[in-house]
Amino acid sequence: MARMTTSREVQLAARPVGAPRDSDFNLVDLTLPQPAAGQIQVRNLYLTVDPYMRGRMNDAKSYAAPFALGETMTGGAVGVVTHSEDASVPVGAHVLHDQGWRTHANIDAKRVKVLPELPGVPLSAYLGVLGMPGLTAYAGLLRTAEFKPGDVVFVSGAAGAVGSAVGQIARLKGAARVIGSAGSADKVRHLIDTLRFDAAFNYKDGPVAEQLKAAAPDGIDVYFDNVGGEHLEAAIGSMRPHGRAAICGMISQYNATEPTPAPRNLVQIIGKQLTLRGFLVGPHYDLFDTFAQEVGGWIASGELKFDETVVEGIDQTPAAFMGLLQGQNTGKMIVKL
Amino acid sequence: MARMTTSREVQLAARPVGAPRDSDFNLVDLTLPQPAAGQIQVRNLYLTVDPYMRGRMNDAKSYAAPFALGETMTGGAVGVVTHSEDASVPVGAHVLHDQGWRTHANIDAKRVKVLPELPGVPLSAYLGVLGMPGLTAYAGLLRTAEFKPGDVVFVSGAAGAVGSAVGQIARLKGAARVIGSAGSADKVRHLIDTLRFDAAFNYKDGPVAEQLKAAAPDGIDVYFDNVGGEHLEAAIGSMRPHGRAAICGMISQYNATEPTPAPRNLVQIIGKQLTLRGFLVGPHYDLFDTFAQEVGGWIASGELKFDETVVEGIDQTPAAFMGLLQGQNTGKMIVKL
Repeated sequence: MARMTTSREVQLAARPVGAPRDSDFNLVDLTLPQPAAGQIQVRNLYLTVDPYMRGRMNDAKSYAAPFALGETMTGGAVGVVTHSEDASVPVGAHVLHDQGWRTHANIDAKRVKVLPELPGVPLSAYLGVLGMPGLTAYAGLLRTAEFKPGDVVFVSGAAGAVGSAVGQIARLKGAARVIGSAGSADKVRHLIDTLRFDAAFNYKDGPVAEQLKAAAPDGIDVYFDNVGGEHLEAAIGSMRPHGRAAICGMISQYNATEPTPAPRNLVQIIGKQLTLRGFLVGPHYDLFDTFAQEVGGWIASGELKFDETVVEGIDQTPAAFMGLLQGQNTGKMIVKL
Repeated sequence: MARMTTSREVQLAARPVGAPRDSDFNLVDLTLPQPAAGQIQVRNLYLTVDPYMRGRMNDAKSYAAPFALGETMTGGAVGVVTHSEDASVPVGAHVLHDQGWRTHANIDAKRVKVLPELPGVPLSAYLGVLGMPGLTAYAGLLRTAEFKPGDVVFVSGAAGAVGSAVGQIARLKGAARVIGSAGSADKVRHLIDTLRFDAAFNYKDGPVAEQLKAAAPDGIDVYFDNVGGEHLEAAIGSMRPHGRAAICGMISQYNATEPTPAPRNLVQIIGKQLTLRGFLVGPHYDLFDTFAQEVGGWIASGELKFDETVVEGIDQTPAAFMGLLQGQNTGKMIVKL
C-alpha cells in the first residue's frame, strides 16, 4: 500500500508590484508520493519568512533565482521526520531544511541538518538567532563591518531578527555605544529595557539624521544597514573618519517601484574615508561553528535575548510575510504549523 | 640693505556658489620680507591646480581646512631657491612645496622637498604623475580598490592626471581590460592611441550605463571614481560580484548646489557583495618610495606616458582652475610661471 500524504503549500500566483497582496499567493493541496530511497518525509513545525524573499518574488537577476510562478516557494523550515528511507536521519528527528512555505515535504536526507535538542533553546531559534539571521548579524558586524571594541555602532531595523542580534553582539563584544532604530515606541522601549541598547529611537518620530545625531552626538563608527534610504543617508552623515557600513538589507526599498534617490550625501565617503560594503550570508558559513558556540553561550547565560513574533497556520504564511515587510514583528517572524 | 621681493598672489575673494567665477578671485602684489634663519626664498616655476581645491573654497567642515577669504590660497608648487638661510637647501636647488597660487614665497627649509634632476623627467612631473596625483592613482588602485591581475578596470575622468595614471598602472599590473571615460572625442582617441586603454568612450555621447556596457560586456571588477553621479551608478550596474570601487573624487558634484540623487541602484551593493570605499591620499604616503621607483621606471622605459595641459602666468591661475573643473585639460593641469 502506498503511503499518501497531503501537503498544503503556498505558491506564487503573481509577481508583486510594490507591496505584496493576498492575490499574489495561492494555497494549494498537493499529494506527496512515498519518499524514495535516500529521502525522508518531514512534517513542518516552523516556517520562516525573511525580507530577502521579497527580492526573489521579482523576475530579476539577483543573487538567488526568482521564485517561479505557479510553484511552491522555498525557505527555511524546521520539521519532524515522519518517514525515513535513509538510516542517517531517523523518524522523530528534528531537522532544518529549505522546503518551507508548505506543511509537508519529501527531501533528500543529505540536504537536511539534524538539530540538537538544547535546554532553553526552542526549535524555532534555528530559524532565527541560532540560524541564518543570527549568522548574518555575526558575520556582517564582525567581518564585513570589521567591528572593533570601542566602536560606536548604529543598527537600523534593530528590533528585527538580524538587528536585535547585531546590537547585542556589539554590546557583548565591547562596543562603546550601541544605538538602534525601530518603527514603534514599544520596540524602542524593548531595545533599551530588554536588549540593553544604549539608545534607540522611533524613525517615524522625525528625521532620522536628527534623531541619530541626538543619540550619537560624537558620531558613529559602524552602521549595520537593514533599511537603506534615509537611514543610510543619516548614517553616512554621522560617520566618523574610517567609518564602515555593512549593507545587509534595504527593506525600505524592496517594495519600491522607482529607484530611490538616497543617499544624497555619498560624496562624504571621500573626505571621511568611509567603506560601504554589501554582503550576503552565504560566503560566511565557515563562521557557523564559532558563531553557534559563542551566541549559544550567550543565550544559555541569558546575556543575549531573542524574540519571536509567531503567526499560526500555513494559510497565514503570506500574511506573516506581508506583516514582516511592514515591520509588524519584534524579533524573528515565525509561522507555527 | 634689506632684500625686498614682490610676490604676485591669488587670493579667494568670495566663496563660489556653483561654478567658480573670475570675481571669486583677487590678484594682489605683496612684499616679502627677507627670509628668516632656517627659511629659504623660492621663485615658483610651476603651480598645480587640482579638483580637491574646489572643496576647500567652501566654508564646510572637510578633510582639509577651508581657504580663508582675503588670504592667498595654498597648493603644490615647484620652485627654484633664490635665497637660503638654511645650509641644507642651497640656492639654485629645485624644491617641491605647498606655497602655490603665488610667484614667490619664504618657506621653512624643513617643509620643502629637494627634487632630484632625472633625465626625461620635467620638474612639473613632481606635481603630477610622480607627485600627489600619481600616488593617488597608485594607492587608490592597488590598496583601496585591492586591484588584482586579471581584473577588468573602469576609470572615469580617465584623461585627467589621476585617471590617466590609473588606467596605465592597471594595464602594466596585468588588468584583463582597461576602460576609460572622458569628455571629448580627442581625449577618447588619446586614451586608446597613446595611453593604450582597451576601450574608451565620451560620456557626452550617450548614457554612461549603455556606453560602459558596450565597452565591458562581461562587466567590471574595479571602478576608480573621479566623477561620481551617473558614472558611479553605471559602474555599480556593471559590477560583477565582489566588485570594488575606489572613490577618489566626484568632480561632477563639486559645483553642485543641490545634493545629487545618484546612485539610485545602490541596493545592488548587497546582492553583488560590492565594496565602495572613499579614500584620501594623505594616509598612503608610506607607499611613496615604492610608487616613485615603480612609476619612475615605467616613465623611463616609455611604458607609461603622461600629459600636461600648461597655462602660462600667475594671473591665469584662476582660469586654469576653472578650466580644470570643466575638463579642459588632458593630463595634469599645470600653471607655468
